[in-house]
Amino acid sequence: MFGDKTGWTLKIRVWVERDGQKILGPGRVELLGHIERHGSISAAAKQMNMSYRRAWSLVRSINDEAGETLVEVTTGGSSGGGATLTPRGKKAVALYRKIVKRLAQAAAGVVKQPADK
Amino acid sequence: MFGDKTGWTLKIRVWVERDGQKILGPGRVELLGHIERHGSISAAAKQMNMSYRRAWSLVRSINDEAGETLVEVTTGGSSGGGATLTPRGKKAVALYRKIVKRLAQAAAGVVKQPADK
Repeated sequence: MFGDKTGWTLKIRVWVERDGQKILGPGRVELLGHIERHGSISAAAKQMNMSYRRAWSLVRSINDEAGETLVEVTTGGSSGGGATLTPRGKKAVALYRKIVKRLAQAAAGVVKQPADK
Repeated sequence: MFGDKTGWTLKIRVWVERDGQKILGPGRVELLGHIERHGSISAAAKQMNMSYRRAWSLVRSINDEAGETLVEVTTGGSSGGGATLTPRGKKAVALYRKIVKRLAQAAAGVVKQPADK
Protein backbone atom coordinates (compact mmCIF):
# COMPACT_ATOMS: atom_id res chain seq x y z
CA MET A 1 0.00 0.00 0.00
CA PHE A 2 2.97 2.30 0.64
CA GLY A 3 5.77 2.72 -1.83
CA ASP A 4 3.86 0.83 -4.48
CA LYS A 5 2.16 2.27 -7.53
CA THR A 6 -0.30 4.24 -5.42
CA GLY A 7 2.46 6.76 -4.74
CA TRP A 8 1.62 6.74 -1.04
CA THR A 9 4.52 7.69 1.17
CA LEU A 10 4.78 7.02 4.87
CA LYS A 11 6.17 9.93 6.89
CA ILE A 12 7.44 9.77 10.44
CA ARG A 13 8.37 12.66 12.65
CA VAL A 14 10.09 12.19 15.97
CA TRP A 15 10.61 14.86 18.57
CA VAL A 16 11.30 15.21 22.27
CA GLU A 17 9.27 17.40 24.58
CA ARG A 18 9.44 18.47 28.18
CA ASP A 19 6.39 20.13 29.73
CA GLY A 20 4.88 20.43 26.26
CA GLN A 21 7.88 22.35 24.91
CA LYS A 22 10.00 20.94 22.11
CA ILE A 23 13.56 20.10 23.09
CA LEU A 24 14.72 18.19 20.04
CA GLY A 25 13.40 17.53 16.57
CA PRO A 26 15.02 16.78 13.20
CA GLY A 27 16.28 20.33 12.63
CA ARG A 28 17.60 20.80 16.15
CA VAL A 29 19.40 17.46 16.10
CA GLU A 30 20.94 18.34 12.76
CA LEU A 31 22.16 21.61 14.27
CA LEU A 32 23.62 19.79 17.29
CA GLY A 33 25.35 17.37 14.95
CA HIS A 34 27.03 20.24 13.12
CA ILE A 35 28.02 21.86 16.43
CA GLU A 36 29.55 18.57 17.53
CA ARG A 37 31.51 18.27 14.31
CA HIS A 38 32.59 21.87 13.95
CA GLY A 39 32.82 23.01 17.57
CA SER A 40 31.14 26.29 16.71
CA ILE A 41 27.63 27.65 16.49
CA SER A 42 28.51 29.94 13.58
CA ALA A 43 30.07 27.11 11.56
CA ALA A 44 27.05 24.92 12.32
CA ALA A 45 24.69 27.71 11.27
CA LYS A 46 26.55 28.09 7.97
CA GLN A 47 26.18 24.39 7.25
CA MET A 48 22.45 24.78 7.59
CA ASN A 49 22.14 28.09 5.74
CA MET A 50 20.84 29.53 8.99
CA SER A 51 21.68 32.87 10.56
CA TYR A 52 24.01 32.83 13.56
CA ARG A 53 21.28 34.57 15.53
CA ARG A 54 18.77 31.85 14.70
CA ALA A 55 21.21 29.06 15.55
CA TRP A 56 22.10 30.71 18.83
CA SER A 57 18.44 31.15 19.69
CA LEU A 58 17.84 27.46 18.98
CA VAL A 59 20.76 26.44 21.20
CA ARG A 60 19.42 28.56 24.03
CA SER A 61 15.97 27.07 23.54
CA ILE A 62 17.37 23.51 23.50
CA ASN A 63 19.21 24.06 26.78
CA ASP A 64 16.27 25.85 28.39
CA GLU A 65 13.65 23.32 27.37
CA ALA A 66 15.87 20.34 28.20
CA GLY A 67 16.22 21.64 31.75
CA GLU A 68 19.95 20.97 31.54
CA THR A 69 22.89 22.02 29.40
CA LEU A 70 23.17 20.00 26.21
CA VAL A 71 25.34 22.56 24.41
CA GLU A 72 28.11 24.37 26.23
CA VAL A 73 29.01 27.68 24.67
CA THR A 74 32.65 28.14 25.54
CA THR A 75 33.21 31.57 24.08
CA GLY A 76 30.80 34.07 22.58
CA GLY A 77 30.43 37.26 20.62
CA SER A 78 28.66 38.49 17.56
CA SER A 79 31.10 36.72 15.25
CA GLY A 80 30.19 33.35 16.78
CA GLY A 81 31.66 31.44 19.68
CA GLY A 82 33.06 28.01 20.33
CA ALA A 83 30.51 25.43 21.37
CA THR A 84 30.57 21.78 22.32
CA LEU A 85 28.01 19.20 23.22
CA THR A 86 28.04 18.09 26.83
CA PRO A 87 28.07 14.32 27.48
CA ARG A 88 24.29 14.52 27.93
CA GLY A 89 24.01 16.46 24.67
CA LYS A 90 26.00 13.79 22.82
CA LYS A 91 23.89 11.09 24.40
CA ALA A 92 20.66 12.85 23.44
CA VAL A 93 21.75 13.23 19.81
CA ALA A 94 22.90 9.62 19.61
CA LEU A 95 19.70 8.34 21.18
CA TYR A 96 17.49 10.47 18.94
CA ARG A 97 19.28 9.18 15.84
CA LYS A 98 19.06 5.63 17.06
CA ILE A 99 15.32 5.98 17.63
CA VAL A 100 14.75 7.51 14.19
CA LYS A 101 16.72 4.68 12.58
CA ARG A 102 14.86 1.99 14.49
CA LEU A 103 11.50 3.54 13.66
CA ALA A 104 12.36 3.68 9.98
CA GLN A 105 13.35 0.01 10.13
CA ALA A 106 10.18 -0.92 12.03
CA ALA A 107 7.99 0.98 9.55
CA ALA A 108 9.74 -0.64 6.58
CA GLY A 109 9.16 -4.03 8.19
CA VAL A 110 5.42 -3.45 8.42
CA VAL A 111 5.09 -1.91 4.98
CA LYS A 112 7.00 -4.67 3.22
CA GLN A 113 4.99 -7.53 4.64
CA PRO A 114 3.50 -9.77 1.95
CA ALA A 115 0.01 -9.26 3.41
CA ASP A 116 0.30 -5.67 2.30
CA LYS A 117 0.58 -6.41 -1.42
CA MET B 1 16.95 9.69 29.16
CA PHE B 2 13.27 9.58 28.22
CA GLY B 3 10.56 8.87 30.72
CA ASP B 4 12.98 9.19 33.63
CA LYS B 5 13.26 12.05 36.07
CA THR B 6 14.26 14.50 33.31
CA GLY B 7 10.60 14.65 32.27
CA TRP B 8 11.59 14.20 28.63
CA THR B 9 8.87 12.69 26.50
CA LEU B 10 9.34 11.09 23.11
CA LYS B 11 6.71 12.02 20.55
CA ILE B 12 6.07 10.28 17.28
CA ARG B 13 3.82 11.40 14.49
CA VAL B 14 2.98 9.20 11.54
CA TRP B 15 1.21 10.33 8.43
CA VAL B 16 0.75 9.26 4.83
CA GLU B 17 1.28 11.57 1.89
CA ARG B 18 0.82 11.41 -1.84
CA ASP B 19 2.43 14.07 -4.00
CA GLY B 20 3.19 16.05 -0.84
CA GLN B 21 -0.46 16.13 0.24
CA LYS B 22 -1.56 14.48 3.45
CA ILE B 23 -3.88 11.51 2.99
CA LEU B 24 -3.94 10.10 6.52
CA GLY B 25 -2.77 11.24 9.92
CA PRO B 26 -3.91 10.53 13.48
CA GLY B 27 -7.06 12.66 13.28
CA ARG B 28 -8.11 11.40 9.86
CA VAL B 29 -7.60 7.78 10.88
CA GLU B 30 -9.65 8.39 14.02
CA LEU B 31 -12.40 9.82 11.84
CA LEU B 32 -12.26 6.83 9.51
CA GLY B 33 -12.44 4.51 12.50
CA HIS B 34 -15.62 6.21 13.69
CA ILE B 35 -17.09 6.07 10.19
CA GLU B 36 -16.31 2.36 10.05
CA ARG B 37 -17.99 1.79 13.42
CA HIS B 38 -21.00 4.03 12.96
CA GLY B 39 -21.56 3.88 9.20
CA SER B 40 -22.19 7.57 9.07
CA ILE B 41 -20.17 10.75 8.67
CA SER B 42 -22.44 12.72 10.97
CA ALA B 43 -22.21 10.13 13.76
CA ALA B 44 -18.43 10.01 13.32
CA ALA B 45 -18.25 13.80 13.44
CA LYS B 46 -20.23 13.84 16.68
CA GLN B 47 -17.84 11.37 18.27
CA MET B 48 -15.02 13.76 17.54
CA ASN B 49 -16.86 16.95 18.47
CA MET B 50 -16.38 18.01 14.88
CA SER B 51 -18.87 19.71 12.61
CA TYR B 52 -20.48 17.59 9.91
CA ARG B 53 -19.16 20.06 7.37
CA ARG B 54 -15.61 19.63 8.63
CA ALA B 55 -15.87 15.83 8.69
CA TRP B 56 -17.31 15.75 5.20
CA SER B 57 -14.54 18.03 3.95
CA LEU B 58 -11.94 15.71 5.49
CA VAL B 59 -13.53 12.67 3.85
CA ARG B 60 -13.45 14.39 0.49
CA SER B 61 -9.84 15.37 1.05
CA ILE B 62 -8.90 11.82 2.09
CA ASN B 63 -10.43 10.36 -1.08
CA ASP B 64 -8.98 13.06 -3.30
CA GLU B 65 -5.47 12.88 -1.91
CA ALA B 66 -5.44 9.08 -1.80
CA GLY B 67 -6.19 8.99 -5.51
CA GLU B 68 -8.83 6.35 -4.84
CA THR B 69 -12.00 5.97 -2.80
CA LEU B 70 -11.31 5.04 0.81
CA VAL B 71 -14.71 6.20 2.07
CA GLU B 72 -17.83 5.52 0.10
CA VAL B 73 -20.63 7.95 0.85
CA THR B 74 -23.76 5.97 0.21
CA THR B 75 -26.34 8.67 0.80
CA GLY B 76 -26.02 12.38 1.43
CA GLY B 77 -27.75 15.53 2.50
CA SER B 78 -27.29 18.29 5.03
CA SER B 79 -28.38 16.01 7.90
CA GLY B 80 -25.55 13.60 7.15
CA GLY B 81 -25.38 10.54 4.99
CA GLY B 82 -24.43 6.91 5.35
CA ALA B 83 -20.80 6.15 4.74
CA THR B 84 -18.64 3.06 4.71
CA LEU B 85 -14.99 2.32 4.28
CA THR B 86 -14.06 0.56 1.08
CA PRO B 87 -11.84 -2.53 1.38
CA ARG B 88 -8.86 -0.29 0.60
CA GLY B 89 -10.02 2.19 3.23
CA LYS B 90 -10.22 -0.55 5.85
CA LYS B 91 -6.82 -1.81 4.83
CA ALA B 92 -5.32 1.67 5.04
CA VAL B 93 -6.73 2.24 8.53
CA ALA B 94 -5.55 -1.17 9.73
CA LEU B 95 -2.10 -0.70 8.26
CA TYR B 96 -1.76 2.81 9.70
CA ARG B 97 -2.67 1.55 13.17
CA LYS B 98 -0.33 -1.38 12.87
CA ILE B 99 2.53 0.93 11.91
CA VAL B 100 1.80 3.31 14.80
CA LYS B 101 1.76 0.38 17.22
CA ARG B 102 4.98 -1.09 15.88
CA LEU B 103 6.71 2.27 16.02
CA ALA B 104 5.65 2.81 19.62
CA GLN B 105 7.01 -0.64 20.46
CA ALA B 106 10.26 0.02 18.60
CA ALA B 107 10.71 3.37 20.33
CA ALA B 108 10.01 1.86 23.74
CA GLY B 109 12.57 -0.83 22.99
CA VAL B 110 15.29 1.75 22.32
CA VAL B 111 14.37 4.01 25.23
CA LYS B 112 14.29 1.18 27.78
CA GLN B 113 17.68 -0.21 26.94
CA PRO B 114 20.00 -0.39 29.98
CA ALA B 115 22.61 1.70 28.15
CA ASP B 116 20.19 4.57 28.32
CA LYS B 117 20.08 4.76 32.09
